[in-house]
Amino acid sequence: MKLDDLETPAALVDVGRMRANLRRAAEYCRAHGLAWRPHAKTHKTPELAAEQMRLGATGVTVATPREAEVMASTVDDILLAYPPFGASKIERLMRLPEYVRLTVGLDSAEALDALAAAARRAGRSVGVLVELDAGMGRVGLGSPEHAVELARRAAQTEGVEYRGIMFYPGHIRGPVAEQDAALATLNARLAERIGALEAAGLRPEVVSGGSTPTFWRSHEIAGLTEVRPGTNIFNDRTTAEIGACHWDECAYSVLATVVSTAVEGQAVVDAGSKALAKEELRAEGGGYGALLDRPDVPVRAVSEEHGLLDLTNTGWRPRVGDRVRIVPNHVCVSVNLQERLWGVSGDEVEAEWEIVGRGRSAWAGRAQVAAG
Amino acid sequence: MKLDDLETPAALVDVGRMRANLRRAAEYCRAHGLAWRPHAKTHKTPELAAEQMRLGATGVTVATPREAEVMASTVDDILLAYPPFGASKIERLMRLPEYVRLTVGLDSAEALDALAAAARRAGRSVGVLVELDAGMGRVGLGSPEHAVELARRAAQTEGVEYRGIMFYPGHIRGPVAEQDAALATLNARLAERIGALEAAGLRPEVVSGGSTPTFWRSHEIAGLTEVRPGTNIFNDRTTAEIGACHWDECAYSVLATVVSTAVEGQAVVDAGSKALAKEELRAEGGGYGALLDRPDVPVRAVSEEHGLLDLTNTGWRPRVGDRVRIVPNHVCVSVNLQERLWGVSGDEVEAEWEIVGRGRSAWAGRAQVAAG
Repeated sequence: MKLDDLETPAALVDVGRMRANLRRAAEYCRAHGLAWRPHAKTHKTPELAAEQMRLGATGVTVATPREAEVMASTVDDILLAYPPFGASKIERLMRLPEYVRLTVGLDSAEALDALAAAARRAGRSVGVLVELDAGMGRVGLGSPEHAVELARRAAQTEGVEYRGIMFYPGHIRGPVAEQDAALATLNARLAERIGALEAAGLRPEVVSGGSTPTFWRSHEIAGLTEVRPGTNIFNDRTTAEIGACHWDECAYSVLATVVSTAVEGQAVVDAGSKALAKEELRAEGGGYGALLDRPDVPVRAVSEEHGLLDLTNTGWRPRVGDRVRIVPNHVCVSVNLQERLWGVSGDEVEAEWEIVGRGRSAWAGRAQVAAG
Repeated sequence: MKLDDLETPAALVDVGRMRANLRRAAEYCRAHGLAWRPHAKTHKTPELAAEQMRLGATGVTVATPREAEVMASTVDDILLAYPPFGASKIERLMRLPEYVRLTVGLDSAEALDALAAAARRAGRSVGVLVELDAGMGRVGLGSPEHAVELARRAAQTEGVEYRGIMFYPGHIRGPVAEQDAALATLNARLAERIGALEAAGLRPEVVSGGSTPTFWRSHEIAGLTEVRPGTNIFNDRTTAEIGACHWDECAYSVLATVVSTAVEGQAVVDAGSKALAKEELRAEGGGYGALLDRPDVPVRAVSEEHGLLDLTNTGWRPRVGDRVRIVPNHVCVSVNLQERLWGVSGDEVEAEWEIVGRGRSAWAGRAQVAAG
């Protein structure tokens, strides 16, 4: 099948670029002795998790029970980096296949106790990582004392096994000097907490961190054993704008058709906020995406099914019916709006992957892909 | 089933409020002699389209072939308010059941000619509305001359039937005085275009407009015959903030669970940008939603699966495990992130509606709901 045969909007993955992105990440982790546990929330697709496992991932990270169920078809080591609160969610985790080594990150006694009770009832042991606030102020315990307290509770509670700590340095991005300062603060913070845990006899076997913006600096985080990047399988406009990848490392784009040129200075395509998402760029520059082959043409505005290409900085004048490929600001939320990904090489469509991990309902499928 | 039995995040529709919203809209249209053709993009759900038809809608509006296919299970009069460019999309429209009276809005000769050619091949007649730019600058023809030219082409082309004009006044919102001025400009613009069409013997039988922000002022738009509001079946935080509905007319909310209170001054819930969407509020006030029962508690920030409730202006301090209902900024994009809607009355879950019109792929289902 050819690219021209696809109905738009369609989500494309440049297979060559994706493999190169994954190989680079795998090699970096090998070189620095870090376990590579990519976050599957970005692709939600078992075939792509299988690719990550083949290239050396030790397992995957997930955020929802649905993602855990789907990834368990392919991967036998899963970290749920999200506290599973509520009986129904916890029971779904307990029903994961027995071969799955499950670890859960959490930051409260409530979440810990509910998980442990369910694990005892189910007769399985679940690993626990105590989540720390790395400075982002989203979730995670702030003080060393609270971290020690919850780690001790995990170590002493039947049904769960204390495995270490996790954090998400999502606040670290931007200019190198700012990153330097933020990494120094993070290292001091981590050292204090790891020290407190060691003093309490609770040395963390796992210290799990990492994000796409800080990915290539993960080796500078003292004590880190594992990284969980999601975005860098595909990259996106934000990742490129903040300098964490090159533009030609963007592997994901939304194929769209020009549907109107009636208004001067712009062209309207059939990909709007229901295909690209309407997330502001977390970097310099405005708009909601840019053309893969013409990064000087941004998507200036989006409605639900309309994307407005800004032709101010280009002499290019598309016609109704022309097709373009758009790199969105944030790939994870754009993928979540699609039903499937099309793997492409040049003009050839090589693969069709259903994004099975989307949504919330329990997954009734079975193992479809050989475990990595 | 009770509300407490639902796993979170879950999309709730207060059935009583929704019915009251629909009845008010239907009565307004009856009182002013306007055809009511609600936009199904907001709910994408045949059962809710059936409810609109029962209350007096003349048909529905859709934006995608998928929505058209799904709505054709229930509704026999459909306006596709979007130019269907590309052979595959047009062929899907031609395969709609024969009982569907189909009209398409478009603004280019390219879109018109492709549609007409397909209609001739399929042996059906498709209505055409010429789309005008009402001042929003998104799509639609700008000058009276261009409108006459495309209307004439539609009237003279076999396979299509010229039915009139359409426009979307999405730029009109905000303070009453601003709306007054914008409506006066719109009326002058419309009068000029309708006059030019009449002079050319192309009097528009249909003049289709209307949006949720301007809904209650539709009768002030001279010559209007039809309105296409989407949002006001549910309303949302933006609609309330701009004064187009009262807060207690918000019928849609996302049920979420508090999963972390580790960071001072906030509570984190399990509904983030993959349940609420991360769209800025197009009105005063920040954040990405607010609690239905505590509108002074906004969702200050969202990550993909985290929503951060800002507790600055409240003495209320939720605990891990507590549940809240969040009204998102923009309901259409939040619904599009869900698999199903739960119809609720108080604490009772009365109905489960699958959002069948989501996505892009061809719909293989059949008529499930009695036509309105």
